[in-house]
Amino acid sequence: MRGTIMDYPLTLPTILEHAGRLHGAQEIVSRQPDRSIHRCTFSNFYRRTRLLAEALLKAGLKPGDRVGTLCWNNATHLEAYFGVPCAGGVLHTLNLRLHADELAYIAQHAGDRFLIVDEDLLPILDGFKDKVDFERIFVVRSGGDIPSGMEDYDDLLATATGDFDYPTIDENDACGMCYTSGTTGKPKGVAYSHRGMVLHTFAVIAPDVFGLSMRDCILPIVPMFHANAWGMPVAAVMAGSKIVFTGPHADADSVLELLDNEGVTLTAGVPTIWLPVLDALKRQPQDWSLRPEMKIIIGGSAAPESMIRDFNDMGHQVIHAWGMTEMTPVGTTGVPKPAFDNMTEDEQFTTLAKQGIPLPFVDIRVMGDDGPAPWDGETMGELQVRGPWIASSYYKPEGTIDSWTDDGWFRTGDVVTVDAEGYVKITDRTKDLIKSGGEWISSVDVENALMGHPEIREAAVIAIPHDRWIERPLACVVTEVGSALTAEAVQAFLGETFAKWWIPDAVEFMEEIPRTSTGKFQKTALRTRFADYKLP
Amino acid sequence: MRGTIMDYPLTLPTILEHAGRLHGAQEIVSRQPDRSIHRCTFSNFYRRTRLLAEALLKAGLKPGDRVGTLCWNNATHLEAYFGVPCAGGVLHTLNLRLHADELAYIAQHAGDRFLIVDEDLLPILDGFKDKVDFERIFVVRSGGDIPSGMEDYDDLLATATGDFDYPTIDENDACGMCYTSGTTGKPKGVAYSHRGMVLHTFAVIAPDVFGLSMRDCILPIVPMFHANAWGMPVAAVMAGSKIVFTGPHADADSVLELLDNEGVTLTAGVPTIWLPVLDALKRQPQDWSLRPEMKIIIGGSAAPESMIRDFNDMGHQVIHAWGMTEMTPVGTTGVPKPAFDNMTEDEQFTTLAKQGIPLPFVDIRVMGDDGPAPWDGETMGELQVRGPWIASSYYKPEGTIDSWTDDGWFRTGDVVTVDAEGYVKITDRTKDLIKSGGEWISSVDVENALMGHPEIREAAVIAIPHDRWIERPLACVVTEVGSALTAEAVQAFLGETFAKWWIPDAVEFMEEIPRTSTGKFQKTALRTRFADYKLP
Repeated sequence: MRGTIMDYPLTLPTILEHAGRLHGAQEIVSRQPDRSIHRCTFSNFYRRTRLLAEALLKAGLKPGDRVGTLCWNNATHLEAYFGVPCAGGVLHTLNLRLHADELAYIAQHAGDRFLIVDEDLLPILDGFKDKVDFERIFVVRSGGDIPSGMEDYDDLLATATGDFDYPTIDENDACGMCYTSGTTGKPKGVAYSHRGMVLHTFAVIAPDVFGLSMRDCILPIVPMFHANAWGMPVAAVMAGSKIVFTGPHADADSVLELLDNEGVTLTAGVPTIWLPVLDALKRQPQDWSLRPEMKIIIGGSAAPESMIRDFNDMGHQVIHAWGMTEMTPVGTTGVPKPAFDNMTEDEQFTTLAKQGIPLPFVDIRVMGDDGPAPWDGETMGELQVRGPWIASSYYKPEGTIDSWTDDGWFRTGDVVTVDAEGYVKITDRTKDLIKSGGEWISSVDVENALMGHPEIREAAVIAIPHDRWIERPLACVVTEVGSALTAEAVQAFLGETFAKWWIPDAVEFMEEIPRTSTGKFQKTALRTRFADYKLP
Repeated sequence: MRGTIMDYPLTLPTILEHAGRLHGAQEIVSRQPDRSIHRCTFSNFYRRTRLLAEALLKAGLKPGDRVGTLCWNNATHLEAYFGVPCAGGVLHTLNLRLHADELAYIAQHAGDRFLIVDEDLLPILDGFKDKVDFERIFVVRSGGDIPSGMEDYDDLLATATGDFDYPTIDENDACGMCYTSGTTGKPKGVAYSHRGMVLHTFAVIAPDVFGLSMRDCILPIVPMFHANAWGMPVAAVMAGSKIVFTGPHADADSVLELLDNEGVTLTAGVPTIWLPVLDALKRQPQDWSLRPEMKIIIGGSAAPESMIRDFNDMGHQVIHAWGMTEMTPVGTTGVPKPAFDNMTEDEQFTTLAKQGIPLPFVDIRVMGDDGPAPWDGETMGELQVRGPWIASSYYKPEGTIDSWTDDGWFRTGDVVTVDAEGYVKITDRTKDLIKSGGEWISSVDVENALMGHPEIREAAVIAIPHDRWIERPLACVVTEVGSALTAEAVQAFLGETFAKWWIPDAVEFMEEIPRTSTGKFQKTALRTRFADYKLP
């Protein structure tokens, strides 16, 4: 028996219309490249976004055509966030931090037909545009001239009349794309659907996720070219929240000035963004007056517990979030459950430092070697996820893809424990995990313990093949200047925390741990270096 | 181009699993018929609900089979809310306030195969059960014996083992049914879809609608047999909120005791429920200690502005909500927009007394004679709605149905204005509206003004055919004892408020206004009585 309910699609034009009609007076604030502040209203945004959609169609955009953006977080990027999909196109946000060769590959693989680019990012575009078949390039000007062969974004908008009807869009049609650049293989693209984006938006607006209302003011520091800026821009438009954009200026002082001046109630970014902000707040607390109820969402990589404690001491709630490009992207958030009230303060912070509980309709399982692992906070396994905003495949994948299980779950590649309350804790990446005698050892846990030693500056732990135990850990350690630390002393130190079989069989001292271009430890380099290593 | 996102259905089992796994410790509190308090956890609820689903399938429930409930608001009714649809069945909540003949018609028209009934409601069941082909009747016992031919609900659950897999459910399949009994014609059934229910749940959880979190405690006074209790039970299960049920005891003292003892943060009911509660709070404010942040949702019919002011004076926020059985049911909520900050207090309360702004994905239009009316707060027209949780038809309709426009909008039958901020105000029912010379006169506005006269106890205004103006208003007035009010005085009184052409051409004084069984003015009776009325 079917329901007698309308077949009404979940598409972005409905959100745009809702926002334009109901939240027209709400403000959008953008820091410009020259540091000046640009202000407009949702009404302006609504009008210009519809003009963009109409102009793109007039320019020949066909359903499903990709439109790339190479833009900062700003009001015009938000126009593209809605204008492209509301014209039936697919918004492809290009990550300006990537190498020119990667950008060329990604733009070409996605088949980007048009490109919208912020004027001050033209030097980046110059690095790869000759390798991509962009048909037309529209420049969002900030005072300079338009290079030959390119066009003014505002001239594009001027071709529209305002007399515009949305094309028919199926809710399963793509609205956007992002590429994830793994440590191995080519970047892989995810095509977000309108349906998935709408559902994700409803999910993150909920009080126990981001909790967005008309009274909120959001400042997403997470870039709009990265995983839909964790869904915040679309969510803020649907909720009617005030939106503040940093433009190119995401340094601590610029961020703090906006948090203060604009009355931000919710902000979000990776831990490395928050370190200098925390530092500035500690040094000169009197310089900024932040809203005490301001919530800080931290994701991308694990927030240190000390960071959570520091913000907490200042009265701000930190919400740890975890997600992936393949998940639109939010999967879990660490909002305190009622069970927190019965925990000690230490237990509370230990739990807040986990990655959080899954959102409704994010179905999770922890897959160990012997099937699903119990939620006991100890048993490790790979986190696998399903849900209506999670990718089922990559866009035109190249090579072998083993990211989905035979029964249709997405393999996150994260090794986790889940405690009885449902809080997920990432303990490792599957590729970095060490498997000794059938049991798993978390390289991350051992590394964190090592880096807690006063004489150890950096540490990475990798697996070395072993005849009897299959794999055993090797610790790679960088000591502080002047330290005379021995391997035995390091092992004895770890013995205070871990079971004997977790303790690395050997310790190698070195000048530095090799790093990737984004500053992460490059364990692949260590594995190559120690490929023929003989454990004692 | 399709998105590369999983085809993951929006169905209720996902919500049940989420709640059982993540919110197991949360509490469900139910007042029993004997006034005692029953407590259980989401874990209990989860376990028993799965048993119910398994047992129904063992009892032969086929996909789409209807299971009726004749139950109060309590924990076992919540089991049916999820257990029936999670077994692939359709929950049909029977409104125990209806006449036995209506109940018989509705249960038979829906084809209810099984029935779950609270023991203390057996006398109501006796009134109509012989006219319905119930195959099996399960009694939720509260101490008495099971009548012959019926079975114990707990015995049904005992047939289940706990080893249960959900059947495959299409998100467009029906999960529930409600009937709406209009003033004319047979009751009409709406079959809610899983998809619509899930989307409605996401929508009402949002901060600017109900705003439900794990920290909330809800008490829905609105009955679970009425329009899904405004979506609150399903929403609370998804959000992991504590749930408090009144059972059969919705009198002011019983409600206040629960609001106080259980720490309720959100409650909801019709205005007539709140009048005695307000009265008790005013008389003996020291008797109850309510949470100051407790929000009160009022819907079903318009809340008087005085009620909103009174609760506001006590520190509680009143949220006016509007919806319909055909809308799953919530369509608008009156949460204060940022624009409130620039209003005078009087303007704020005038706005709060409106029905609110539409939820995201509730698409509205106001249709006047000349097409869509502007959002100017003055132009009246019929409110028409579209959206993914709004009915597209009735279930097996009988007779002529004119509730949908040719272009697919649901005609609410409400005549409204919408102001520039998007707040909808219901001014009349289409059937009661008076059309004079092509312009509309709101019978409700004139009635409200009349009832503000110190010597007028009741008033109803109806349309009388008119040669020149097509229709003109007639005021039917009941005066206070001893009043010598004249028609001319009444007209002069209205002249202080309204334009000349709004003033009724005649005033008829009478002993009482005829009423329906639910206490509403029965304007049809007045129209019949004055069918041949000659205006002066």
